[in-house]
Amino acid sequence: MEFKQIISNRYATKSFDGRPLLQDQVDALLELIRFAPSSFNLQPWKILVIKDAATKEKLAPAAWNQAQITTCSHLLVLLADTNVSALIDRLDAQMTAAGVHADQRDPYLKMMRGFASGMSDDQKRSWSQRQVYLALGNALNGAKSLGFDSCPMEGFDPVQFAKILNLPANLVPTVLCPIGYAADVQPAKIRFDKKDVVIVP
Amino acid sequence: MEFKQIISNRYATKSFDGRPLLQDQVDALLELIRFAPSSFNLQPWKILVIKDAATKEKLAPAAWNQAQITTCSHLLVLLADTNVSALIDRLDAQMTAAGVHADQRDPYLKMMRGFASGMSDDQKRSWSQRQVYLALGNALNGAKSLGFDSCPMEGFDPVQFAKILNLPANLVPTVLCPIGYAADVQPAKIRFDKKDVVIVP
Repeated sequence: MEFKQIISNRYATKSFDGRPLLQDQVDALLELIRFAPSSFNLQPWKILVIKDAATKEKLAPAAWNQAQITTCSHLLVLLADTNVSALIDRLDAQMTAAGVHADQRDPYLKMMRGFASGMSDDQKRSWSQRQVYLALGNALNGAKSLGFDSCPMEGFDPVQFAKILNLPANLVPTVLCPIGYAADVQPAKIRFDKKDVVIVP
Repeated sequence: MEFKQIISNRYATKSFDGRPLLQDQVDALLELIRFAPSSFNLQPWKILVIKDAATKEKLAPAAWNQAQITTCSHLLVLLADTNVSALIDRLDAQMTAAGVHADQRDPYLKMMRGFASGMSDDQKRSWSQRQVYLALGNALNGAKSLGFDSCPMEGFDPVQFAKILNLPANLVPTVLCPIGYAADVQPAKIRFDKKDVVIVP
């Protein structure tokens, strides 16, 4: 499917028909997400994959009981990883393992460490969360490219989610992406006019 | 091009060859960006399109003179629009014009206004900026789908950019996306292992 068609056909599915996705489909989507771009390639995210009905039921009240939570096949909880220095260490190890030469690697790592040390905890969270939306974009478009549906959801209580899912403090629930097969019909797309969003000086 | 291939072939281009894109190509990309998803469909962004060399030259020092700024065909400056209540008014008008019935429109608008009134200025900026990364994702993947290259860039001074571009206070320069034809070669993709980014409880 061409990208333009993916964008036209993707929409925020309000309810799913409950049919399960195959593990291969979920794995294929996770690969599309894993290869999303991010600032410094630091990939400050984790994707929590929830399949079992009991956990979905437990989470639903913390997402205003929206139908997507319990009717989807898999609920992806996109977590921002705010432990930036640990991410830098991991990327360092990965670049080393990939054979990136120290002459190229060291200045890059130094720049990243300088960048990280200049940020407050709030700024780290904001920065990580912004990157998560690049992963989300790949999840939404990726699902459609693989022939199924999705819904981006900010309407949930991240504190409750962290508690129910027993998450460590550095992983911040940022946005949900239930996936599965739509039980609703795509509505007409409404977007602002080009003149309202594009500025050509 | 299949989405998987787009994701594999897209990379952060470090320098462009200076060849100009056709206006049709830029317009096609802007449409892919315009149809990006966003929370509440509020599309809190504007895309500033810079083609002329003089403005690029003026901006370059505020982006550490990185080569992409002056070698690209067009520099897209993605701005977060933090005037959320104006966005809600615009969406209200657009939904009305599209014939969405008041029974459906009014509760939705009420929910959005409640959401917006509960946010501090900082939270509004963070929220708008997160959405911009969905537009950015479409820009990066979209460019590759249309046969050209791009680079996501956070390395610039948003205050200087706002000053040089004479932007109103509600429009916050958030991320740059120069586009054109690459003059460099795609490096091998380095990503964290699946076990480091995917959690299956």
